[in-house]
Amino acid sequence: MSTDRDILCQPLTADAFAPFGDVLDASGEPDKIINAGKCGRYHDRAQLDFGPGGRAGISLFHAEPRQFPYTLDLLERHPEGSQAFLPMTQNPFLVIVSETAHSRPLAFLTAPGQGINLHRGTWHGVLTPLAAPGLFAVIDRIGDTANLEEHRLDPPWRILPG
Amino acid sequence: MSTDRDILCQPLTADAFAPFGDVLDASGEPDKIINAGKCGRYHDRAQLDFGPGGRAGISLFHAEPRQFPYTLDLLERHPEGSQAFLPMTQNPFLVIVSETAHSRPLAFLTAPGQGINLHRGTWHGVLTPLAAPGLFAVIDRIGDTANLEEHRLDPPWRILPG
Repeated sequence: MSTDRDILCQPLTADAFAPFGDVLDASGEPDKIINAGKCGRYHDRAQLDFGPGGRAGISLFHAEPRQFPYTLDLLERHPEGSQAFLPMTQNPFLVIVSETAHSRPLAFLTAPGQGINLHRGTWHGVLTPLAAPGLFAVIDRIGDTANLEEHRLDPPWRILPG
Repeated sequence: MSTDRDILCQPLTADAFAPFGDVLDASGEPDKIINAGKCGRYHDRAQLDFGPGGRAGISLFHAEPRQFPYTLDLLERHPEGSQAFLPMTQNPFLVIVSETAHSRPLAFLTAPGQGINLHRGTWHGVLTPLAAPGLFAVIDRIGDTANLEEHRLDPPWRILPG
């Protein structure tokens, strides 16, 4: 039974995602052709921001795959830094974001070859791959502070495929 | 016919690659378990260095697949910054590095789930995927300078599978 706590996934597009972050993909024309014509460079596509006391780091996340319907009972955000997720597979994954901790969240389903960069302070769900291996390169803030706020959702939302 | 200009690929390991850069993968135990036990974080695995006048950026590279035997006729390096390549597929790719522009290069073949970070100033071959799509997230220096030195190899080297 469908309820008003159900959220349907939409395809991830740069326009729809713009209030929350950057879509990182190789769609359209490259900004530069390099390596004697054999490589297109899509240049500097993420709005990185690691605050005054942080720096960029590359980490890997290996996450357990989730299934639909997905129960969304937690939002989090990183007040001091942006966070990018680049899948190291061609498997689509689920991207959940919210304007505030109390707004109705949006759910996006990526296409193969799409990563995202969450702008600093964006409320989002935890990393949710939909297939194994749930392997991602993560570019986020390295620093000495916790850089994490959590908000539990009660009742939860139920995320369904679009 | 095999000649002394032939170089055989070796598997990519952190130890063998250490003089040139970092292997970025999720092997071994994670540094931290997050998201209620559902995700392992392999934390801050790359030695990033973007020099005094640069900053980190995320770009995407879409490169044409190459085949064995691969003719290596060019080395390049970025004197002002490190450069990381994270494959957005599970396809192995070829990593060629060299101690100097005049040394005998080494060729490594990645395993699925392995990326690399070339340390600042490391001589390397151009990005060489072996299957389509040759799609990579690249974390390198954004700045106003060319940050590129090239060295043509004449005669070339011939890279063969291991």
